[in-house]
Amino acid sequence: MDIRTHVLEKAKQAKQAAQRMAVVESAVKDSALRAMAEAILDNRAAITTANEKDLAKADEYGLTNAMVDRLTLTGKRIEGMAEGLREIASFPEPVGKLTDMVQRPSGIRVGRMTVPIGLIGFIYESRPNVTADAAGLTLKAGNAVLLRGGKEALNSNIFLAGLLNDAAKSNGIPDGVISIVEMTDREGVRHMIEAEGIIDLIIPRGGKGLIKAVVEGARIPVIKHYEGNCHVYIDKTADLEGALRIAVNAKAQRPGVCNAAETLLVHHEVADAFLPSAVEEFVKKGVELRGCKRTCGIVTDMKAATEDDWYTEYLDLVLAVKIVDSLEDAVDHINTYSSHHTEAIVTSDVLSADYFVTAVDSSSVMVNASTRFADGGVYGLGAEIGISTDKLHARGPMGVADLTTYKWVVYGKNSIR
Amino acid sequence: MDIRTHVLEKAKQAKQAAQRMAVVESAVKDSALRAMAEAILDNRAAITTANEKDLAKADEYGLTNAMVDRLTLTGKRIEGMAEGLREIASFPEPVGKLTDMVQRPSGIRVGRMTVPIGLIGFIYESRPNVTADAAGLTLKAGNAVLLRGGKEALNSNIFLAGLLNDAAKSNGIPDGVISIVEMTDREGVRHMIEAEGIIDLIIPRGGKGLIKAVVEGARIPVIKHYEGNCHVYIDKTADLEGALRIAVNAKAQRPGVCNAAETLLVHHEVADAFLPSAVEEFVKKGVELRGCKRTCGIVTDMKAATEDDWYTEYLDLVLAVKIVDSLEDAVDHINTYSSHHTEAIVTSDVLSADYFVTAVDSSSVMVNASTRFADGGVYGLGAEIGISTDKLHARGPMGVADLTTYKWVVYGKNSIR
Repeated sequence: MDIRTHVLEKAKQAKQAAQRMAVVESAVKDSALRAMAEAILDNRAAITTANEKDLAKADEYGLTNAMVDRLTLTGKRIEGMAEGLREIASFPEPVGKLTDMVQRPSGIRVGRMTVPIGLIGFIYESRPNVTADAAGLTLKAGNAVLLRGGKEALNSNIFLAGLLNDAAKSNGIPDGVISIVEMTDREGVRHMIEAEGIIDLIIPRGGKGLIKAVVEGARIPVIKHYEGNCHVYIDKTADLEGALRIAVNAKAQRPGVCNAAETLLVHHEVADAFLPSAVEEFVKKGVELRGCKRTCGIVTDMKAATEDDWYTEYLDLVLAVKIVDSLEDAVDHINTYSSHHTEAIVTSDVLSADYFVTAVDSSSVMVNASTRFADGGVYGLGAEIGISTDKLHARGPMGVADLTTYKWVVYGKNSIR
Repeated sequence: MDIRTHVLEKAKQAKQAAQRMAVVESAVKDSALRAMAEAILDNRAAITTANEKDLAKADEYGLTNAMVDRLTLTGKRIEGMAEGLREIASFPEPVGKLTDMVQRPSGIRVGRMTVPIGLIGFIYESRPNVTADAAGLTLKAGNAVLLRGGKEALNSNIFLAGLLNDAAKSNGIPDGVISIVEMTDREGVRHMIEAEGIIDLIIPRGGKGLIKAVVEGARIPVIKHYEGNCHVYIDKTADLEGALRIAVNAKAQRPGVCNAAETLLVHHEVADAFLPSAVEEFVKKGVELRGCKRTCGIVTDMKAATEDDWYTEYLDLVLAVKIVDSLEDAVDHINTYSSHHTEAIVTSDVLSADYFVTAVDSSSVMVNASTRFADGGVYGLGAEIGISTDKLHARGPMGVADLTTYKWVVYGKNSIR
């Protein structure tokens, strides 16, 4: 079978499952999620066997040690998948919420009801335990999902998707609600993102190359998790001790994640007082610093930052540092160079905080808190399907509720216009 | 200047205006909207002069009478634009609403704040009075707009956009918040829809050719108003008198609009009782009917419907009629052939109504009410920028609130993770 036929057949079957899914009741979904968790725990050995097939090919695919680590389904990770599914079962039901119902002068009553999005195409790389998260979150919101993982995790993903679909099906969920593309030819992605009228939303999670290819080719809506070029701005009124704590935490607590800070902006009035001790602290934590001209004037021995540095998500113990003349300049710098993920201001001035919150065009804005807080779990959403760096539909951490949309519901009395 | 440079320069300037717009206060926006209304009333003659330049080219562009009618800015339409802007000024402020604020175990407080989307690219055809609506609605929600109208209305649109931008600018709105592409080369559309990172959202309103070109080429989010292939389903428990009233209203009250019905579905148990008198009524209203085989068996002389008819938005006094075996079959037909705009059920059974509302995958679902009610004004949104047939971000009638998005706002106490 050619890849186009394979993808379209899978997608059409999944779309039919999505339509049947619209009327499945809350209790059925939750018992299916619990059964899916059981199925994972009951099939530890088989999951490990499938995973070992992928691991055996790691050298052939040229995976780095870090990639092999992410690919490996340890006992703990297998239990983590089951636990995640049980947690999702315990979330409040996101579908069927009827809001803003009001009677209109024409006599009709009109309101908005939350409903599933339909068929979600989830395109991801590397970690096979994401398969269970994605299946659980999309199912809870009443959707079907068409999974398309990377070739390096193909055996693990196919086994998990089949196991979860079977467990769901045995518990009243339409067959095909959890579907997977079983051929990993690269054109498979193209056929998914062109499947207008069949797939309702594409969520890509992976490297920049994948995201770019999806955005350029898609004919259907995409919500992407692009990158986190996050900023911490130290205002002239900042408590400098708190500022240091936040800056160090934002950069160094876990530098490899998207909500870690990549550039530190410092108001010129506090640069002399703040930077020398901050640099000392960063160096202690092993952070390499790259400063603007003025920063290098205060702290000698510092590497000079280039224009490129302001755009860069290092995902590493590297931090760009820039002195700015004003709060407004800090905001302008952020709105120019940021990836619109998360930015923090440290200030004791209410008006400065207000301006920053209002003017910064990013999905999360922090006042006197570390950028590291930008996370669905921390915000109280439960598990997240990703962190949207897009502005439409969902922004920032995306939980189960963001996997629904709404319809307008109108009740009349044989009413006409 | 080449078209690409023109579009990108306009877009970049408008994007800067959008960023400055984020901190403009509510009262400033509303007084600017009122000043824009005044400017329109004060410049009736100049608007007419610009419009006459377009009308003089109507023959050259091969416009039909209906198109010339839509292009003409009569005195009443000019006043309508001013009235529309005043009405928008009176709407509640959509920006800055902070919801779901909650303290989390980490000590941070987190909530969601409504914010402008940014720069909206609005691509439209024919009616120049839409220029004022689009400028007013996007401005109210704190956005900048880059307008791109059709060549047939170029002079009217350029004059109106300039007039409105100047009036807004004199009242505290950043210059360029209302911008217009002044060259109408077709590639201009392509440069807009590829302007990733500059334009945040494209709203196309026009013919199918335009919409298709936008969807296929866009690298940025699109919310489209596609078409309205709407259905009325007469359930076996329907009050047949009410059913007739609704069916006739949905088809014939204003057949040329997107919320008019195009297909009538009838439960087989009431087909004999309902169809003959319904057909009589439709024929009286000048409606041409196209029936499925079973319909043609009940009402002779009826033209047979083809597979194509089920997909067609006639926008005319034509109606396809199909007898179905069950409520479920009616829903399946709708989910297969509909454009997901608006569908109505006529029924006296609560469970049937419930199933229809839940299972139909369309932006508006009506129970015992005509599809013609699907409208922003009727629903209480005030003016609408369009009716979204997409599922993401906004669905159905789109008012000012749908021209906003949100950001997460976090307040800490020098909090770290």
